[in-house]
Amino acid sequence: MTVHAVHDAARAAREAQPSLARLHRDTKDAVLLAMADALVARAEEIVSANARDLEAADAAGMAAGLRDRLALDPQRVDAIAQQLRDAAALPDPVGEVMRGSVLRNGLELRQVRVPLGVIGMVYEARPNVTVDAAGLALKSGNAVVLRGGSAALHSNTALIAVLRSVLAEHDLPEDLIVGIDEHGRDGVDALMRARGLIDVLIPRGGAGLIRRVVENSLVPVIETGTGKTHILVDASADLDQAEAIVVNAKTQRVGVCNALETLLVHRDVASEALPRLAAPLAEAGVRFHVDEESAGILTAAGTSAEIVPATEEDWDTEYLGLELAVKVVSDLDDALAHVRAHSTGHTESILTRDLLSQQRFLAEVDSAVVMANASTRFSDGSEFGFGAEIGISTQKLHARGPMGLVEMTTGKWLVVGQGHVRP
Amino acid sequence: MTVHAVHDAARAAREAQPSLARLHRDTKDAVLLAMADALVARAEEIVSANARDLEAADAAGMAAGLRDRLALDPQRVDAIAQQLRDAAALPDPVGEVMRGSVLRNGLELRQVRVPLGVIGMVYEARPNVTVDAAGLALKSGNAVVLRGGSAALHSNTALIAVLRSVLAEHDLPEDLIVGIDEHGRDGVDALMRARGLIDVLIPRGGAGLIRRVVENSLVPVIETGTGKTHILVDASADLDQAEAIVVNAKTQRVGVCNALETLLVHRDVASEALPRLAAPLAEAGVRFHVDEESAGILTAAGTSAEIVPATEEDWDTEYLGLELAVKVVSDLDDALAHVRAHSTGHTESILTRDLLSQQRFLAEVDSAVVMANASTRFSDGSEFGFGAEIGISTQKLHARGPMGLVEMTTGKWLVVGQGHVRP
Repeated sequence: MTVHAVHDAARAAREAQPSLARLHRDTKDAVLLAMADALVARAEEIVSANARDLEAADAAGMAAGLRDRLALDPQRVDAIAQQLRDAAALPDPVGEVMRGSVLRNGLELRQVRVPLGVIGMVYEARPNVTVDAAGLALKSGNAVVLRGGSAALHSNTALIAVLRSVLAEHDLPEDLIVGIDEHGRDGVDALMRARGLIDVLIPRGGAGLIRRVVENSLVPVIETGTGKTHILVDASADLDQAEAIVVNAKTQRVGVCNALETLLVHRDVASEALPRLAAPLAEAGVRFHVDEESAGILTAAGTSAEIVPATEEDWDTEYLGLELAVKVVSDLDDALAHVRAHSTGHTESILTRDLLSQQRFLAEVDSAVVMANASTRFSDGSEFGFGAEIGISTQKLHARGPMGLVEMTTGKWLVVGQGHVRP
Repeated sequence: MTVHAVHDAARAAREAQPSLARLHRDTKDAVLLAMADALVARAEEIVSANARDLEAADAAGMAAGLRDRLALDPQRVDAIAQQLRDAAALPDPVGEVMRGSVLRNGLELRQVRVPLGVIGMVYEARPNVTVDAAGLALKSGNAVVLRGGSAALHSNTALIAVLRSVLAEHDLPEDLIVGIDEHGRDGVDALMRARGLIDVLIPRGGAGLIRRVVENSLVPVIETGTGKTHILVDASADLDQAEAIVVNAKTQRVGVCNALETLLVHRDVASEALPRLAAPLAEAGVRFHVDEESAGILTAAGTSAEIVPATEEDWDTEYLGLELAVKVVSDLDDALAHVRAHSTGHTESILTRDLLSQQRFLAEVDSAVVMANASTRFSDGSEFGFGAEIGISTQKLHARGPMGLVEMTTGKWLVVGQGHVRP
């Protein structure tokens, strides 16, 4: 039953999408701004739907962090509406001529940017993602099927109802934005089997959800993966900079995929650098999972930091919290080998003043984003100037790294002849 | 056992690949040219290995068309060597700066083109594909795992041995090119499960093989799909041009994915156009699967063509032979609806002198290649000027339409700061 209902919803979105694909930017932006106004105007209704979700969450003993992401008040509804105004201000990727030429035989060739079609989004109980995803999909000409976590069912239903009513007011099919939260986990399974109905599935959430989707989906998936990010403090690093960058990367915001998870320190500077870096991190409450050599150095320096011996598992753990794996490496090759073995391909950074080290690190690390002398926290669509971000892809096909509106499109080849036949 | 052996082979290719990723174009081209020379020099050995495959094929009663694709002689080995020389002459996509800017805060941002990593190719018993795929992979900096059909086992083994010996002569790891033909169908299953070892799997072959890979692979797949291509003869079409284009699209080469499979004719010109188009096609031996209206028109015109009533199945069949589905459409909307329902998203063409019809067809048909007044046979990497083609993708993610060297690469973001931390 769920499969049929979800596939019917996807089919409706698919049938609605061509009318959106051909809208001009002016119209799309007008709809986005009207949606923002409608959300603000109907904030009370949205907040009271959210209260029902919060009640259920409290009864189920939801963790404080998750509850905070779920909770809405009028100020948060304003912020969500602002996401739509921001999307309206972004350039429209659709129609861009990506490549083009006239062939020797006179055929005119153009590759133009077009919407992907129908995007399936699977994410956690975060109502702001519902609106953000719907807005970015609309701006890029895509219909969207949203599966946002049953814990946010009432909030998402209220938000989607507002967005759909604005579509109808603009004589657009409501099924450009479809929610399937009421189908629970079965809805995700049905989406994964909607081959030919959904063009791409984007899971955003924990590693378990993402693995489940990647391994089971018949629909193409863009993996917004985990970030086991590394920073290498090279022998020639400026230690003042290193201190600022490492503290920023680990503590400016925890629980995000571009936060630092493993610190590698070159042996030549380890005895000076490690105690220096550890002090402000320890002060911020970071606990260290250290290899034997780091342990020795930190202990000898009389560190006040909380240190525990690193296990093999630590080199592959995305803590998403105030924990940090720490290891001394003998040289750049040793560091590169460690990164190759343990990186999730998200973001790595080298701190160095040596040109050759920087060149080698940038060239040899095979991650979506590779940095020198900068905090991994910059690995982000907004920071990159995309204006909006649908996630950070850790796969290599189609989209790699921060995904903006451009990554929600594909190309189409247009070939215009004057009676051309192939010799 | 097969899984372990295939995964070991893929792992070896993965370990070898970084040494190739950093080679300059001059070196890669020199290796390709040396491979071409080695194939010519060792043609006798290759042809005699091929003779063993042909013997087995004859014993098994292989169809003539398949046997012809399998057969090698010194001239064909020359032609295969030429493919490598052609690859050497192509520009190197690796290192291209795709996007780049300096952010407001001074961070330098560049997206550069890098190899995908390890490409798995699954294809039929065509020894020329073995060399072509290996050459294009090498040029684009990728290691390749080749599974070319057990009927070509001895031929492929001989060809791969020659290529690997040239790698070794150039101090490159032989495992940049790995063949796994000896593992038969189980080898394909093992490749599909080589997640983390193979970056992308490209199946080339019949619809059954492609569906099996798409539905079962845990590794990302690029689908080189079937081509149920359509031509619409619009009311305003120049019928001289239409005749030339339709004959070219259907008969210039049959059995290829960009050959015409369904002819749609606008009702306003059907009684004139259909008999005119049918005559030269019938002469070329084409059999027509016609809807009722086409049947009436052709019969009334006293056609000599062989016509059979079209079944529902005909609208979805890729004949790959001298067969053609024919249907009269009432107008452009009717044609667009038929294409939407039955196209495989490969290539469609409109023949028209009406600007609005052309605009609407190019905008509204959602296929990889959409043409006006040109034969569908131009939907091809060589014709597009890519110089080489690894296949034609009918999916929307990553690569859509003819795939050349560029489509065998991905992007990597390089971010260079001077001690940047995120505020």
